[in-house]
Amino acid sequence: MKDILYGTAYYYEYLPVDRLDKDIEMMKAANINVVRIGESTWSTYEPQDGVFDFSPLDKVLDAMHTAGIHVIVGTPTYAIPTWLAKTYPEVMVQVDGQRKPYGARQIFDITNPTFLRYAERIIRKMMQHVAHHPAVIGFQVDNETKHYGTSSDNVQKGFVQFLKREFKGDLKQLNQEFGLDYWSNRINAWEDFPSMDGTINGSLQTAFETYRQKLVTNYLAWQVSLVDDYRLANQFVTHNFDFEWRGYSYGIQPEVNHFDASAALTYAGGDIYHPSRKHLTGTELSFAGDELRTLKHDNYLVMETQAQAFKQQVPYPGQLRQLAYSHLASGANMVEYWHWHSIHNSAETYWKGILSHDFQPNPIYDEVKQTGTELKRLSSHLVNLKIKANVAFLASNRSFTALNAFPFSDNHNYNDLFRSLYDQFYRLNIRTDITDETHIRLQDYQLIVVPALYSVSDAFLDKLDDYVKRGGHVIYTFKSGFTNEHVKVRMDQQPGRLTRSTGVHYNLFVDPDGTQLVGQSRSLRQIADTSLQDWMELLIPDTAEILATYDDPNWSNYAAITKNHYGQGSVIYLGCYPSAAVISQLVADYTQELGLRRFTAAFPVIIKQGTNDLGKTVTYYFNYSSETQLVSNPVRGTDLLSNQEVVNKLVLNPWGVAIVESV
Amino acid sequence: MKDILYGTAYYYEYLPVDRLDKDIEMMKAANINVVRIGESTWSTYEPQDGVFDFSPLDKVLDAMHTAGIHVIVGTPTYAIPTWLAKTYPEVMVQVDGQRKPYGARQIFDITNPTFLRYAERIIRKMMQHVAHHPAVIGFQVDNETKHYGTSSDNVQKGFVQFLKREFKGDLKQLNQEFGLDYWSNRINAWEDFPSMDGTINGSLQTAFETYRQKLVTNYLAWQVSLVDDYRLANQFVTHNFDFEWRGYSYGIQPEVNHFDASAALTYAGGDIYHPSRKHLTGTELSFAGDELRTLKHDNYLVMETQAQAFKQQVPYPGQLRQLAYSHLASGANMVEYWHWHSIHNSAETYWKGILSHDFQPNPIYDEVKQTGTELKRLSSHLVNLKIKANVAFLASNRSFTALNAFPFSDNHNYNDLFRSLYDQFYRLNIRTDITDETHIRLQDYQLIVVPALYSVSDAFLDKLDDYVKRGGHVIYTFKSGFTNEHVKVRMDQQPGRLTRSTGVHYNLFVDPDGTQLVGQSRSLRQIADTSLQDWMELLIPDTAEILATYDDPNWSNYAAITKNHYGQGSVIYLGCYPSAAVISQLVADYTQELGLRRFTAAFPVIIKQGTNDLGKTVTYYFNYSSETQLVSNPVRGTDLLSNQEVVNKLVLNPWGVAIVESV
Amino acid sequence: MKDILYGTAYYYEYLPVDRLDKDIEMMKAANINVVRIGESTWSTYEPQDGVFDFSPLDKVLDAMHTAGIHVIVGTPTYAIPTWLAKTYPEVMVQVDGQRKPYGARQIFDITNPTFLRYAERIIRKMMQHVAHHPAVIGFQVDNETKHYGTSSDNVQKGFVQFLKREFKGDLKQLNQEFGLDYWSNRINAWEDFPSMDGTINGSLQTAFETYRQKLVTNYLAWQVSLVDDYRLANQFVTHNFDFEWRGYSYGIQPEVNHFDASAALTYAGGDIYHPSRKHLTGTELSFAGDELRTLKHDNYLVMETQAQAFKQQVPYPGQLRQLAYSHLASGANMVEYWHWHSIHNSAETYWKGILSHDFQPNPIYDEVKQTGTELKRLSSHLVNLKIKANVAFLASNRSFTALNAFPFSDNHNYNDLFRSLYDQFYRLNIRTDITDETHIRLQDYQLIVVPALYSVSDAFLDKLDDYVKRGGHVIYTFKSGFTNEHVKVRMDQQPGRLTRSTGVHYNLFVDPDGTQLVGQSRSLRQIADTSLQDWMELLIPDTAEILATYDDPNWSNYAAITKNHYGQGSVIYLGCYPSAAVISQLVADYTQELGLRRFTAAFPVIIKQGTNDLGKTVTYYFNYSSETQLVSNPVRGTDLLSNQEVVNKLVLNPWGVAIVESV
Repeated sequence: MKDILYGTAYYYEYLPVDRLDKDIEMMKAANINVVRIGESTWSTYEPQDGVFDFSPLDKVLDAMHTAGIHVIVGTPTYAIPTWLAKTYPEVMVQVDGQRKPYGARQIFDITNPTFLRYAERIIRKMMQHVAHHPAVIGFQVDNETKHYGTSSDNVQKGFVQFLKREFKGDLKQLNQEFGLDYWSNRINAWEDFPSMDGTINGSLQTAFETYRQKLVTNYLAWQVSLVDDYRLANQFVTHNFDFEWRGYSYGIQPEVNHFDASAALTYAGGDIYHPSRKHLTGTELSFAGDELRTLKHDNYLVMETQAQAFKQQVPYPGQLRQLAYSHLASGANMVEYWHWHSIHNSAETYWKGILSHDFQPNPIYDEVKQTGTELKRLSSHLVNLKIKANVAFLASNRSFTALNAFPFSDNHNYNDLFRSLYDQFYRLNIRTDITDETHIRLQDYQLIVVPALYSVSDAFLDKLDDYVKRGGHVIYTFKSGFTNEHVKVRMDQQPGRLTRSTGVHYNLFVDPDGTQLVGQSRSLRQIADTSLQDWMELLIPDTAEILATYDDPNWSNYAAITKNHYGQGSVIYLGCYPSAAVISQLVADYTQELGLRRFTAAFPVIIKQGTNDLGKTVTYYFNYSSETQLVSNPVRGTDLLSNQEVVNKLVLNPWGVAIVESV
Repeated sequence: MKDILYGTAYYYEYLPVDRLDKDIEMMKAANINVVRIGESTWSTYEPQDGVFDFSPLDKVLDAMHTAGIHVIVGTPTYAIPTWLAKTYPEVMVQVDGQRKPYGARQIFDITNPTFLRYAERIIRKMMQHVAHHPAVIGFQVDNETKHYGTSSDNVQKGFVQFLKREFKGDLKQLNQEFGLDYWSNRINAWEDFPSMDGTINGSLQTAFETYRQKLVTNYLAWQVSLVDDYRLANQFVTHNFDFEWRGYSYGIQPEVNHFDASAALTYAGGDIYHPSRKHLTGTELSFAGDELRTLKHDNYLVMETQAQAFKQQVPYPGQLRQLAYSHLASGANMVEYWHWHSIHNSAETYWKGILSHDFQPNPIYDEVKQTGTELKRLSSHLVNLKIKANVAFLASNRSFTALNAFPFSDNHNYNDLFRSLYDQFYRLNIRTDITDETHIRLQDYQLIVVPALYSVSDAFLDKLDDYVKRGGHVIYTFKSGFTNEHVKVRMDQQPGRLTRSTGVHYNLFVDPDGTQLVGQSRSLRQIADTSLQDWMELLIPDTAEILATYDDPNWSNYAAITKNHYGQGSVIYLGCYPSAAVISQLVADYTQELGLRRFTAAFPVIIKQGTNDLGKTVTYYFNYSSETQLVSNPVRGTDLLSNQEVVNKLVLNPWGVAIVESV
Repeated sequence: MKDILYGTAYYYEYLPVDRLDKDIEMMKAANINVVRIGESTWSTYEPQDGVFDFSPLDKVLDAMHTAGIHVIVGTPTYAIPTWLAKTYPEVMVQVDGQRKPYGARQIFDITNPTFLRYAERIIRKMMQHVAHHPAVIGFQVDNETKHYGTSSDNVQKGFVQFLKREFKGDLKQLNQEFGLDYWSNRINAWEDFPSMDGTINGSLQTAFETYRQKLVTNYLAWQVSLVDDYRLANQFVTHNFDFEWRGYSYGIQPEVNHFDASAALTYAGGDIYHPSRKHLTGTELSFAGDELRTLKHDNYLVMETQAQAFKQQVPYPGQLRQLAYSHLASGANMVEYWHWHSIHNSAETYWKGILSHDFQPNPIYDEVKQTGTELKRLSSHLVNLKIKANVAFLASNRSFTALNAFPFSDNHNYNDLFRSLYDQFYRLNIRTDITDETHIRLQDYQLIVVPALYSVSDAFLDKLDDYVKRGGHVIYTFKSGFTNEHVKVRMDQQPGRLTRSTGVHYNLFVDPDGTQLVGQSRSLRQIADTSLQDWMELLIPDTAEILATYDDPNWSNYAAITKNHYGQGSVIYLGCYPSAAVISQLVADYTQELGLRRFTAAFPVIIKQGTNDLGKTVTYYFNYSSETQLVSNPVRGTDLLSNQEVVNKLVLNPWGVAIVESV
């Protein structure tokens, strides 16, 4: 990419009055150089079946081109027209036997042939019309696509065909592997296969969800193939992935396999929303950035992030600017706000944009303007940052799904555990990649962090084993290896197939119910918060060193956390879900020992490093607090923002940033 | 009206044994002079399609007449017979595509032609039979009518016709005004109009709810027109309105527009239920009374209020009597308990009446008797009390609906905010009217209180502006003026069209999230509870004086509460939802300044004043506490209850009452 | 029975590999002598309509027989095959108009003729095949049967026929008795009878639930009749009853009338699950045991109890052994764990058995082995324990149902109240029976405890009255006698028809809302916790002595708890739901006075006594705590476990047991 893209989603069609020229004037003043358009207004472009009107698109494209603002065009399929739903009610998604009523976005069936026929036509028509417009630099296919919980008849049938292929038609093998004799669920003929709506079999539930995630992957690839028929070599195609939503982007997306689905794209792109004001830590930007960057081992695009957003998210002065740099520091080449102007009707009226409903300049717009001006000046130093991580987090959509069927906790899901580990690496300024079983290049990393790899094949466990043997290091948590790829519990002693590398085994696990951890290593003995958040395996160490035990006198002989040397490598095993303080100490000790800590500073000072197009090292320093922070022994070089030389110390203002370029 | 009506709902049909004569004997002993009958037993009067049996009605009417007890007859339509539901299942209301099963009351479709045909026949038959009976003084049409959430096909179609008329067939204008391009909701042909079941458009939601409220208004007017075909000049027709239900009558009814629907009635009537025992404050009686009285600017009828009611509501000794007078003090001419005898089966078995299930005298009956005897003696002094308020509360059913689509809080709705203001006027003994945009006579009031007038036309905002200019005073809260009558956010600077009279504007609003208020006026600086309940606009004063700001250092330059002089009048603007203590102080200061406080005493001493038929001033004093209260400088005159002269002071017993008549 | 049966549910069909021989070897090593098989795998035995394969059953039966392990065979009907649901979707249960999707167990309609036809065939085929196998000692019909909430059309019709018979076709009488005039629910022709899905009439709700409980009774009797066609004289037939489920067996089963349904069985059998670890008190074992034992006034079978179970239930070392003896001490002749091996797929993967998923010996297996070995040695001393209770608890399924329609509390149901009383007898080591109105032999008991006998006939109340008159003693709680057998509130003064024996009456009842109890008796005055959990009748004593009053000054003249002498007997009446401490004191005082306390020790020392086949007294001592307990003045005799003479004192280890045999 030539320049940092800085921009916003722009909805000309939503405007209460035509103020395109005025909007562009204000964008230019703010040095906005890209807009995303078009992804939600099918009904405007095709007002009736087969009647097309792309004049609003034309108008915006021409005006943007004239102004020198790039445009990303979205295919408009994630919300369907009223006429389509009225004429063909069968396009609406059916969940548990109930068809959703028309209204919201994302409530149709992405596998319905009628929907697909109409979607293909509008995409082709739109592409024919806009693809070669000089303003267009790329395309976004659909938006935040999921399978929307579809359990319609054709999906049920497709799933049975999928299993038939996977089990080569061998029903006996399927019954055996999925344990279907239980509660008389045995299927003795393919035509008896029941709907998944009522299934209580976690293996089937997981396989069905995996199948539906493949539907999403295929759907996106299909849209890309349509776009590919029209796009030019210098135009990219991307998608707007989103993450587990807890009012912001919390963790791994439970309904889409980003690792597979991103294959079809030129660049990975995604939504990144996050807490704000005193709750802002930057963790979500780093987490989502690490995942998006690792998807294609390349720079990525922030398709959406918040400007004002909801009332609880309006940033403090300074935060919006800081956040733009945080995205770049994780490897983003584009930061696009959602959205330009606040909407005057409907569901997202209070999800406010850069401009309030009055379209007047305001403190948020002013900060966009300041940031845009800086980015314009520094673009060549910041674009295409190359990033190298020595630590990888191993995500597993299948384990996430299986653990939803078999939760280890009433309060925590897979992502909570994932984040409990991730957050500590973030706070210690250790750069991490996030990838999955299918795509990880084990040999690229010194340390692999494996949260609850609950559903996993023998073959992959053996690979991990081999990785350690050859000198790799792994942190496993409880529940790893427990079931195979069909969510069948292993008959091996647990942790299944990992007993050698972990040097422990167990056959009992209990609920903590007030049990406390007892640190056995010197550093863990110091930790005040010895509570257990969840889960408690009664580990029997074979070759492993005990780092912590439990305080229950009935079970004090068992281990809770262990460390084992195996071959040339080593393994930490967490048999329980300890407090954040314990995890923090474990991560600090282990990364220190493995030489993975590059910086002594830690949160609220966040440091991210990479190499720019000029071959120079760029080191970002962020202050995620309302207090001024002093960084001693910073990287020596020039702070690009202040143009000051950085030598012995660096002072970071509240919510401040420094970008040190050095040789 | 000639006399205070004091009585009870009476269900002869529900009696486990026939004890009509015994019941009447006990009523006479208690000086009960009115009963309401007939509103819920259609299946008894029409046991089969076209077969009628009004003998239970006849029997009760004759016996009451003989005893000299007046009767109000209710049309029996709010619960339908089993045979009707069995024969015509389509009469049951359909909500979100699901038809309700038979059983409860109020679960049919008030627009269904089959229902209407049968309802008309039973009403006409019943009226023919009873209307000219000498015992009958009036009629109640239906009971606590609502639209029951109907979203059946004919209602959807009716709604489309309604919009077509309102927009004169101009779909483009509708799409524009309702912002339907958003998420491809655009409607390009009237026949594409989707069902409202799934809509995510707040403008459509509000319009649909407004349409359904009109259905209720029309339905009641239609019933009145049927009754009018039979009733005599000296017979009245009323309805039993109820209020937002939180286990008691909390606030404005969200599903019925009382202000419109009351037009067809002779008198306004309603349910008034309230907390009891140590939770009794009398606020609900005052609130509901103020609304019912303002509906027709006349005395009103309390169609139902509690005797024993549920186990948490059984009154302390003395409270029942006090409450009867409280109703009269707000302008009621009738107090009717629900109900005479506790029911021995079905849903309301534990909603107990004056009598327990054993029909024996009990402490509640004894207190009814004491009260009935007093009322008989004092009737001519208390009936037809004329009441004048200088302050009006402006209610808005449309704003309430729109704020349900776009809530300003997770914990508070429109009525919470309304009551937060109302309660302070009540506690300061300032008489208020409650009316709405369509019916308010602005010039009649010195002060208008406007809670969250969220959806409102330009024209009405201009009227309010003009009112202030000419010397009126207004208290506005946050969210007022934000959207137009179609719930489209104004493009003006906010508070939309009110910037001149309020003297402030804002374009950012945030969640308090722990932010505290900082009082800037002398009196607000004294308030200990500076917390914010919700919402926080970052006000920029133009001409207004700042009464309070926020303690967040990032936003300390903005105002929170302001006061502005505009023309001959003034405006207080609350940009946030402060604590009760702050609201109380604001109301106390402002009403003091405007000369609106007539009494120095405040809650738990409640004072209500009016003029009786004798042209004398009647001043009610209530003690809403378990401690004796001393009132200094009371109105001089005669306490009608004790027949004592009141001169320098007045002693009120726990839950006690005094009624001072003076010249 | 000849020997104590000690065993486990065994699911050969669920095994991931065939390890029958290894399993049996481990069972033998543990002295397991019985397994239950077959109750959940219809789809394995009849893989297609009319195709049968009992080879898995044959294999297990042969192998068990060879090993000398007895087998109980379950009919496999509580989970249906996929092909049955696919071919006849109408067999799935319909609840509130919605048919359940296939997947879970217990989601078909036990009245559906198609289901019944197929169920009969598989039962007959299975019985023909296995009944005469020498390993088979008995049968379990179905499993944890309920009506699954069926409200399908045929059930509705059957219910109407049932009422028609009960009311001899007299609709007028039905309308009167059920109060159907209310809200126009009157039924004027049988063909108008509405579905019960929407009814708001508590009398109808209770009658419908009672009818559905009869469906369960009939269904079980029908299965027994099928089994009877095949079983030999020395083979028994039982069922696995379960209890109200709160994560464990909490109280009376709300959906099945055990008292009626057990009539068809040879032995009563049931599930008994309970809290574990520090939450273990043994109360659930005693409660369920008392009920199961009283059902047939005979020893009973524990068909299922936990081994490891869920993570929160894994027992401390020692608890599993203690619990096995606790079952025997309540009269069990069999203790069967659920289940042998933990399952590798599906819903109950984490409901772990004796063996973990790795099939290896573990601490739980080791304790089973220790217990099995002891039981083998002591069997002849422990089997067929005869037990005599002087106190009976009177359960009432109808009152439970009616109180669900008319709850006395937001937080407590019928079982909470039942257990509040039961637990105190348990803790004081007073043996109790649990039976119901239809089966109780009043004359057998000195004291009857009657929790909330809300729906009850005049005749039975008169029997209780007569029982007291002749010298019996009763504890009644609030709500007793309130309604008749049709849940119609009595017109008598309350407590209906009990005013003479209780010596009190009331007509007001209120919510405590912070009111405290004031002890009037010497011992109640000492109790610190005077809070009220719920409910508060304002009792007016006629002849009764006041044990406690209320602290509310408005209601301090009323009584809260009373005691009355009536005829030769006496009655305690609780007009409120006091604290556990108050109930404990009341029970202690009253049982002391009545000479019902045989032991001075109390919880955590639990003592259970009976007579064995040798005519000797067997006294079990349990320590339900983690601290060693000293029992002074124990029964003299021999501790069968230690073979030590017990003379002056007995030391019980944490979670320890002693079994003293004496003459």
